[in-house]
Amino acid sequence: MARDTRERILEMALALFNAEGEPHITTNRIADELGISPGNLHYHFRTKSDLIRALFDRFESRMLEVLTTPEERHPEIEDIWLFLHLAFELIGDYRFLYRDLTDLCTRHRYLHQRFRAILKLSIGTAEGLIEGLKDQGQIKASEEEQAALVRNIVLVSTFWLAFDQVIETDGQARPERAAWQVMSLVSPYLVGDARTSLERLARAYMD
Amino acid sequence: MARDTRERILEMALALFNAEGEPHITTNRIADELGISPGNLHYHFRTKSDLIRALFDRFESRMLEVLTTPEERHPEIEDIWLFLHLAFELIGDYRFLYRDLTDLCTRHRYLHQRFRAILKLSIGTAEGLIEGLKDQGQIKASEEEQAALVRNIVLVSTFWLAFDQVIETDGQARPERAAWQVMSLVSPYLVGDARTSLERLARAYMD
Repeated sequence: MARDTRERILEMALALFNAEGEPHITTNRIADELGISPGNLHYHFRTKSDLIRALFDRFESRMLEVLTTPEERHPEIEDIWLFLHLAFELIGDYRFLYRDLTDLCTRHRYLHQRFRAILKLSIGTAEGLIEGLKDQGQIKASEEEQAALVRNIVLVSTFWLAFDQVIETDGQARPERAAWQVMSLVSPYLVGDARTSLERLARAYMD
Repeated sequence: MARDTRERILEMALALFNAEGEPHITTNRIADELGISPGNLHYHFRTKSDLIRALFDRFESRMLEVLTTPEERHPEIEDIWLFLHLAFELIGDYRFLYRDLTDLCTRHRYLHQRFRAILKLSIGTAEGLIEGLKDQGQIKASEEEQAALVRNIVLVSTFWLAFDQVIETDGQARPERAAWQVMSLVSPYLVGDARTSLERLARAYMD
């Protein structure tokens, strides 16, 4: 029963943080929305910081899973597309982290360290995928172009949600739009079969 | 004399916001660093929000100037490179805005509206520059590629600083690195003279 309350607190905190932004939500508000006493919430999470940490733990374990999945030596464009979808779905589920990323990182040292590790791992995953396409002769790019491409892939992936929120073209986290925006970074370097595959995916996406 | 104090307050606020992040700086801290009383600061700026607004006014007028400068019908790669330098120097001067952008936009409605206008104007400027290169046969891109490119240019420009801060590869705002990162989005689409010009700039930059 206590375990159940803990779970309900985490779910409500995530929903409120995502909807209104973590800085604007107090633990009292979370207790209030759940119809439990502040003391009861305090029993499970002593501070808001503990709550954020518990949510980050969950996000991190899922993100590490996503980032270490594409271990194939010979990825196809479709594999990359699917990978991006999974990543952006997860980012959407924990969008409060991506919305106030720099502020959260300044306020929580552990979060900064662990998020930095995720970004570095993301760079490694992106490098692996691009390298895999290159090995198969599906990408043509110099070393410098490839390094800049990898950096842009991770940058656009990380801040796509924040950009969309500020510019308000959409406001909703739509994984397929984000995936498309990232693929557009790769597309001018594609040659051969990979280019044809992406054009097919693009047509399916546009419809 | 009063005018001078107002100016000193603005300069100190900007320096502290940039160094430690706006959410972590109180008006009392600013008064303290200047060696003036909180009452004196309060006489010039009633709230921290008034201070942020005054700084944003300055940033905005300089940014509008930068964004409306490239009115040439036939831009060269060197013009775009110079334009990016000016933009990133300005962003560096007001980096507190870019660091906590989404949080600031949530807390200050006027700032969100005016920042959104700046981003839309940036999209327009980027479109104009790309279109100008296209007219001269220096870029080869489909309509869809061009739209995605313009969006990526503005996204990378806006969040380059926040990305660098989280990943801590550098930590300093270096306009030439940011300009290079944005040019790398355009480079795979360049053909003819423009490609040669960029390669020359790249070599100068790498040295």
